[in-house]
Amino acid sequence: MGIRELNPALENVLNAQLDRIALEENLEKDVILSGIDAGTIVALGNPRHPNLTAIIVGQPARVKINANLGTSPLQSCLQTELEKIKAALDAKTDTIMDLSTSGDLDEIRVNMLKACPLPVGTVPIYSVAKALADENRDIASMTADELLAEIEKQCKQGVDFITVHCGLTKRGAMFGTKRDRVLGIVSRGGSMLTRWMIENNRENPLLENFDRLLDICRPYNVTLSLGDGLRPGACADAGDAAQWEEVINLGELALHGLKHGVQCMIEGPGHMALNLVEGQITAIKRLTHNAPLYVLGPLVCDSTPGYDHIAGAIGGAIGVTAGVDFLCYLTPAEHLTLPNADDVKAGVMASRVAAHAGEVALGKKTALVREADMNKARRNLDWEGMTKSAIDPDEVTRRRESHKQEEVCAMCGKFCSVKMLRDIGK
Amino acid sequence: MGIRELNPALENVLNAQLDRIALEENLEKDVILSGIDAGTIVALGNPRHPNLTAIIVGQPARVKINANLGTSPLQSCLQTELEKIKAALDAKTDTIMDLSTSGDLDEIRVNMLKACPLPVGTVPIYSVAKALADENRDIASMTADELLAEIEKQCKQGVDFITVHCGLTKRGAMFGTKRDRVLGIVSRGGSMLTRWMIENNRENPLLENFDRLLDICRPYNVTLSLGDGLRPGACADAGDAAQWEEVINLGELALHGLKHGVQCMIEGPGHMALNLVEGQITAIKRLTHNAPLYVLGPLVCDSTPGYDHIAGAIGGAIGVTAGVDFLCYLTPAEHLTLPNADDVKAGVMASRVAAHAGEVALGKKTALVREADMNKARRNLDWEGMTKSAIDPDEVTRRRESHKQEEVCAMCGKFCSVKMLRDIGK
Repeated sequence: MGIRELNPALENVLNAQLDRIALEENLEKDVILSGIDAGTIVALGNPRHPNLTAIIVGQPARVKINANLGTSPLQSCLQTELEKIKAALDAKTDTIMDLSTSGDLDEIRVNMLKACPLPVGTVPIYSVAKALADENRDIASMTADELLAEIEKQCKQGVDFITVHCGLTKRGAMFGTKRDRVLGIVSRGGSMLTRWMIENNRENPLLENFDRLLDICRPYNVTLSLGDGLRPGACADAGDAAQWEEVINLGELALHGLKHGVQCMIEGPGHMALNLVEGQITAIKRLTHNAPLYVLGPLVCDSTPGYDHIAGAIGGAIGVTAGVDFLCYLTPAEHLTLPNADDVKAGVMASRVAAHAGEVALGKKTALVREADMNKARRNLDWEGMTKSAIDPDEVTRRRESHKQEEVCAMCGKFCSVKMLRDIGK
Repeated sequence: MGIRELNPALENVLNAQLDRIALEENLEKDVILSGIDAGTIVALGNPRHPNLTAIIVGQPARVKINANLGTSPLQSCLQTELEKIKAALDAKTDTIMDLSTSGDLDEIRVNMLKACPLPVGTVPIYSVAKALADENRDIASMTADELLAEIEKQCKQGVDFITVHCGLTKRGAMFGTKRDRVLGIVSRGGSMLTRWMIENNRENPLLENFDRLLDICRPYNVTLSLGDGLRPGACADAGDAAQWEEVINLGELALHGLKHGVQCMIEGPGHMALNLVEGQITAIKRLTHNAPLYVLGPLVCDSTPGYDHIAGAIGGAIGVTAGVDFLCYLTPAEHLTLPNADDVKAGVMASRVAAHAGEVALGKKTALVREADMNKARRNLDWEGMTKSAIDPDEVTRRRESHKQEEVCAMCGKFCSVKMLRDIGK
């Protein structure tokens, strides 16, 4: 049996939304369905999510963007999160993730699901860690049942995808902590599970209970985003044994999930110098059987806090040309603090630039049509056309406001190169 | 005779400033001098520039950043330009260019030279075009003598480098205008000279008078930035006959300049999809005999006005790994209007991210030391160390302001992955 027969919730979502998705993606429905059957495309959408707008992730679909939102112990306000959702949606994110770790997490999550019709992801172990911390319990005291119960609750609430670091093994954690890593483990979920494994001297509970996890997620078509708990947190750590050990496991788990009716994506790095991006992405896609690849960056340098959305856009653009399907944004606040609404917009836009640049290089039709429209408008000094073709029309309008009556722009004025040659002989 | 014997002004600048430059670049003086002799490094500095701080451009020196400033017919105010110089210097640009085309251009230029000790470049044909426009004369009525007189005046004022589109031929202009280019010619200087050549049916006056140009610039050690008047203005135009015809000429002219005692850099594109960057940069460096390469971007897509600093950083970072020596910034205002001081900062910082990312990939020692310092500080949750290692310490301080007493950052709070593993067993 294929995944759609095994997963009636997925079939329901497709029955309701595939026509719209195919139209928006400019893809044949059969292409999408074959990709879902092969595990190279996932359809994100939990039927319990209120007013759900499902999307697909995975080639040949458009590259998607995720915006990480959520509270932290040092900054916690539902209203702020709702404003950030609006900023992310206005900037045309494709999904959001609620990474809240402070406040009433159920209330926050349920409200974020209501406020965001697009798919919403979470990292359920954060909620467990928060509940434990509230009781002054160490993460190492978590039981597998507690973690799975939290996941089931979130499935019922309507969460569409969850990050689960199932591929992190004791062996991988040893590589990540005992070897010569500059920055050890930088994934929060990865460090929680590593602490758990070391303190309990047991294997990762998400790995040991993977089949139970599948049984919990299947009825809600919750997609597993198989997390990279050992992603490099410094360029110097990129490509080490810790990272690849986990990637191999993620590939095996994704195949197992597909076979048992649960869609899986692969999470990818992370920090790596830009000359490594193409090779790493190619290798990760191979090891994970072309499952949709969802990357954080890649961040091509370490020393650019305040500008990590740009460092991430550099890696993201190259990554897209090598097979990345889904870009998790970085904002200017990365490594420093929680993003505000302006940072959220900056992060989504930087990722959209990266996705567009990558798709132009790949020769994707929708990207090339946008470019052709923009260039036609530029040739004709047609500002309305330029505005319409821009990835952020409002920003073009805002910057043109003070001289919108002019045929030329305020940079060149009458020395416009286009005008100068058009008017030859006049 | 080598270039230093032929150019006493260059020798004077080196005598006065080479020790400091070698120290700052962490290079042996002999390496720098050999590079200058070979034409692979240029020392930017006109002895007439008040309080000059000369710099070198060209591998193995640090990649340099330029900020384009200057007035336009729609926005002209000296005070604003001086504020933008301050913003550019605060953000650590290496040079500025004054591209003013409106107001009292001599007054603006002389004041910018006073306000900026770092090298200042110009595009002298803009000043001629402005003077002609003031007299209602078409650019086609310009004489070679008028253009060369303007250049000599600017040399005497202390300008350190000038963009001169000497490699643009009638043949190249034909390729750029008559063939199937999407956007024709987008360089202002290129379009002026093309209009001149078409209307007069004569060869480019800067090419025909190249030896006179050398004689004018040599006494002031004014470096020629051999402009790419036919750079592609759309990704679809990248790599066409127009572009390469000009690059070949620029390579020949750079050799001729070197042989006759005038330093030359090569200006490069422009718009090109990211998969083309490495190959184009490699080819341009080869055709121009490894002369320092100064690029505008490259911009890896066309439809991102408002975010072209990011699209340019993507191309710039890849370009640096392939041999680019000097990045001309793009600001968020590119293609729309003149940048304000905030845009100038954003542009310089985006270019610095690109340069740093490229240098990390190249394994440049200074870049790797910065990364190592940052990662050591991160491992120790040492915020002072992180701030110091960041490319913009003020920005880190500003974002940390509201929670600077905390050991962890406001993104993860007590769920900090570094802290979680450091505290195992506690």
